[in-house]
Amino acid sequence: MKQENSDQLLKRIHSYIENLSYMREPEGLYDPIEYVLGLGGKRLRPVLMLLAYNLYKEDVERIFPQAAGIETYHNFTLLHDDLMDNADMRRGKPTVHKKWDENTAILSGDAMLILAYQFMMQDCPTGYMKEVMDVFGRTALEVCEGQQWDMEFETRTDVTVDEYIEMIRLKTSVLLSGALKIGAILGGASAEDARLLYDFGIKMGLAFQLQDDYLDVYGDPAVFGKKIGGDILCNKKTFMLITAFAHAGEEDRKKLQAWIEAKDFVPSEKIEAVTSIYDKVGIAGLCREKIDAYYEEGLRLLDEVSVEPALKENLRDFVCGLMNRKL
Amino acid sequence: MKQENSDQLLKRIHSYIENLSYMREPEGLYDPIEYVLGLGGKRLRPVLMLLAYNLYKEDVERIFPQAAGIETYHNFTLLHDDLMDNADMRRGKPTVHKKWDENTAILSGDAMLILAYQFMMQDCPTGYMKEVMDVFGRTALEVCEGQQWDMEFETRTDVTVDEYIEMIRLKTSVLLSGALKIGAILGGASAEDARLLYDFGIKMGLAFQLQDDYLDVYGDPAVFGKKIGGDILCNKKTFMLITAFAHAGEEDRKKLQAWIEAKDFVPSEKIEAVTSIYDKVGIAGLCREKIDAYYEEGLRLLDEVSVEPALKENLRDFVCGLMNRKL
Repeated sequence: MKQENSDQLLKRIHSYIENLSYMREPEGLYDPIEYVLGLGGKRLRPVLMLLAYNLYKEDVERIFPQAAGIETYHNFTLLHDDLMDNADMRRGKPTVHKKWDENTAILSGDAMLILAYQFMMQDCPTGYMKEVMDVFGRTALEVCEGQQWDMEFETRTDVTVDEYIEMIRLKTSVLLSGALKIGAILGGASAEDARLLYDFGIKMGLAFQLQDDYLDVYGDPAVFGKKIGGDILCNKKTFMLITAFAHAGEEDRKKLQAWIEAKDFVPSEKIEAVTSIYDKVGIAGLCREKIDAYYEEGLRLLDEVSVEPALKENLRDFVCGLMNRKL
Repeated sequence: MKQENSDQLLKRIHSYIENLSYMREPEGLYDPIEYVLGLGGKRLRPVLMLLAYNLYKEDVERIFPQAAGIETYHNFTLLHDDLMDNADMRRGKPTVHKKWDENTAILSGDAMLILAYQFMMQDCPTGYMKEVMDVFGRTALEVCEGQQWDMEFETRTDVTVDEYIEMIRLKTSVLLSGALKIGAILGGASAEDARLLYDFGIKMGLAFQLQDDYLDVYGDPAVFGKKIGGDILCNKKTFMLITAFAHAGEEDRKKLQAWIEAKDFVPSEKIEAVTSIYDKVGIAGLCREKIDAYYEEGLRLLDEVSVEPALKENLRDFVCGLMNRKL
């Protein structure tokens, strides 16, 4: 079977998304949507969908509308999340509520969510429509649930590791999984394969998010692309902070608590102090173990998918690349 | 064929909506949705959907999920519109962003829009699914377009009557029409009947909104249920204000302009002054003519629907009741 690798698929879906024709009046509603979709990004979710489809079928262009739908949904969540977080910048450009205003961000976001559904249904084979829309709808709702937990955790001090993992499962993993599952369904995969690919996506999403948290503390700023220590500065209850609290001695726990409650501080000092407690507790190692465990579980699930191992190479390579792993 | 009148249908769908089971964790996400759906209201759109379905089929309970879907969508728009308009109250209760906060209003609204799609697809017969979802998606997008025009008109001074009519068609009419058309499609109506019912809804929606504008100036506060003069106070570019500008003499036009630009004024004085210009120009009569014209056009479209005239009585009675008309 003819397959394309992730670079080829990315190029094609990126160009498809750039040339989407949903623009119409009023421009005040559609301009911000075009702006957000034009900011680019890795197009991770559509590429995953195409890779999953390509395990079973060659004509990937058949599902470009659905791939555009999942990307539109993802970008809708970024638009509204940035508004809720009052973030100024996204991908190096002003966010919609900064470039326009809050009402524009609300309403254009709503229209974008509806457009995501439109794309998802466009040319969707009748026989798969219900199943695809079920996966998409459930996933979309779960992403909202993840965002709600994330916001609630900001003011809570008793978040457990299990709660944190469930939050990132909802906020990050299920959309990757949903993309893979929809691609598999449209490719005609068995229910078992669709489930395995979904579960593979969950594990990889957890590994991916935990790695993102890890790099926020221990990453190379030049490579990571974000400032280091952002999560520490805003007291984000990551796996690392929760675990540090659980493993630190009495004195370090008090220090950590003081830094969390501190109102006036020099950012670099807080980052350094918290990181040094992380180091003492060995958080880096604990976090890497957790990442590796999810990553390995994910790969085992992919192994079970009932297509020729050679056909899984593109998907495997893509995910390994995301994790910066060599095979 | 066994039919139910609008009161019977309202009672059944109201009870169905009250007993919907979509609640799950996190409560912070779903509580506001339950709150908004529990505020009641006339359930106009679901009743229209059921009445349209009932022109063709008896088992109205088959489409309760779709009827709940259109009501959920409508209530989602109220939730986000109230946030954008910074409205404090809705149906005598605090709005979601007042009772909770703005982020809750954004995110619970998003989840509500997704839930509306879930209900719309629930138990939808496969053969009608694509058509139903097409109507729903297009309608949902048009309602956003109407809201965008409405917001843009606030800062414009050159809005024409045609533009105003197009805005209320999008913001108000299409959802009534969409409800009727989806009911017709699910009832197995011909494409021509579905179109006629859609167009009937458009005309009735325009008549209904113009009457609402009319009552905002000339209504009996005890009956109308809202304070009189609200549109005048916020310079809303209604058919009446636009027409008054077009028909007033030089002097009255200047007076009207001065009231629109006035920053400090006694509300009752502004209402009285603008109303007296309306009276001089004969706006009440012009507005009633326009309402009657749309209303009559609507009834003629309903006459063309190819079911026994006796079967159309419930739908006709319901719409006449909304317009406070005797047949």
